[in-house]
Amino acid sequence: MEYAGSLVHGWQEQSGLRTAQGTLQEALAAVLGHEVTVAGTSRTDAGVHALGQCCSFRTGSAIPVEKIPLAVNHMLAGGRTGAGSKVADLRVTSATEVPQDFHARFDCRGKTYRYVIRTGEPDIFLRNYVYYIEGEPDIALMREAAGHLIGTHDFRCFMAAGGTPGKTTVRTVTDLTLEERKPGSGGREIVMEITGDGFLYNMVRIIAGTLIEAGLGRIRPDEMPEILGSLDRGKAGHTAPPWGLYLKEIYFDSIVSE
Amino acid sequence: MEYAGSLVHGWQEQSGLRTAQGTLQEALAAVLGHEVTVAGTSRTDAGVHALGQCCSFRTGSAIPVEKIPLAVNHMLAGGRTGAGSKVADLRVTSATEVPQDFHARFDCRGKTYRYVIRTGEPDIFLRNYVYYIEGEPDIALMREAAGHLIGTHDFRCFMAAGGTPGKTTVRTVTDLTLEERKPGSGGREIVMEITGDGFLYNMVRIIAGTLIEAGLGRIRPDEMPEILGSLDRGKAGHTAPPWGLYLKEIYFDSIVSE
Repeated sequence: MEYAGSLVHGWQEQSGLRTAQGTLQEALAAVLGHEVTVAGTSRTDAGVHALGQCCSFRTGSAIPVEKIPLAVNHMLAGGRTGAGSKVADLRVTSATEVPQDFHARFDCRGKTYRYVIRTGEPDIFLRNYVYYIEGEPDIALMREAAGHLIGTHDFRCFMAAGGTPGKTTVRTVTDLTLEERKPGSGGREIVMEITGDGFLYNMVRIIAGTLIEAGLGRIRPDEMPEILGSLDRGKAGHTAPPWGLYLKEIYFDSIVSE
Repeated sequence: MEYAGSLVHGWQEQSGLRTAQGTLQEALAAVLGHEVTVAGTSRTDAGVHALGQCCSFRTGSAIPVEKIPLAVNHMLAGGRTGAGSKVADLRVTSATEVPQDFHARFDCRGKTYRYVIRTGEPDIFLRNYVYYIEGEPDIALMREAAGHLIGTHDFRCFMAAGGTPGKTTVRTVTDLTLEERKPGSGGREIVMEITGDGFLYNMVRIIAGTLIEAGLGRIRPDEMPEILGSLDRGKAGHTAPPWGLYLKEIYFDSIVSE
């Protein structure tokens, strides 16, 4: 499913707040005819966007699984179509039947996140969708710094205080790319994409903040191994804000990824 | 100034709601050192966006007029810059000193509005910024229908109930164009731009709804003169929603338009 972080208060159900999980569960209950609790893969924070969030749930409903997206989306749009209808704030893009023991969170094998940075005169229509920074980072320096993060490392220095890393803070980053383009409206857009087997709390946002600082010359790329080795959050860069972050894709074993 | 309609509850000050006028007045008061009431040209409704809203106000402040935009924008962004700063929800693009008797509303000579329509699979990130319609309108039919609206007419059939038209419902539309493009994400984007000496309440949105219906074959272009002549709101098409509408530009006499 996809949702804009500016429209919901994060993934996880919270009483009194419109969250992605709560919104989806309400619509699903109406479609399936029974209450349902979904297990989401990623607990996105408030402000973070999802292009490819996943979740699993159990139902005995006779509704064919391939009809669920359309039925849920219709419910989410308030059942309205045509003149005056509004697009829902969350959209289910597909549904698949999976084995009974599948769990969207525990069976996740990896994820790709995107982080979008802009420079130049801020466009207020993008205020919730990109991170505007001051200065013009050198993308070659950002890429050089990023190169040090690929592979299996203890990423403790890129974990926010309060994170609960599980057994270990070791993670494997399999890909980390930086691309830039010039939007018609001026300035530059720099898009970071990072793929790994798992991410610590705020890890992607702290990596984005650190690479921005590398691009601006405040951190030298060759300092990156030392920063990683320090295991010290204080050595890494700032935490880039949630509104530049997109959960792009989630990977499972082949049985459910098709 | 510019603002996104999804971020403020319309132009006009309302107690307890964040409006464009209220937001601007607060920031201006902090910059000028005194309370101020601004006169806006257009009372945009909730959800309607502004790319070129104008307002006038009086001040005895010694701050040079050309410094006002930057000072106000800094105040609107919460005084924060750099890491973690967020773009404000309203931005002042320019300020000019005008004669004492100038009034942004009464001295307005004309305006251009833009209305943005999309077809195809809705993109939730655009939900507050374009009007998604079902079906594929024929732009040639829309243009043919639009042609009947250019000129000086009694536009009463395009005024929402509750509108207060002033002395007359006669207005002059000097330009009305429709352009389309294919966004990379699929579907079509149809952009209507309309320029006139003034617009009745909801006139642009009802014209947009009527032209969509013409494009979909529900209203024949050659019925337009009859619809205009009827002076009957019930004969025109539906009112397109506010989130597709942009106040693009406002025209004054040359002394202040430079």
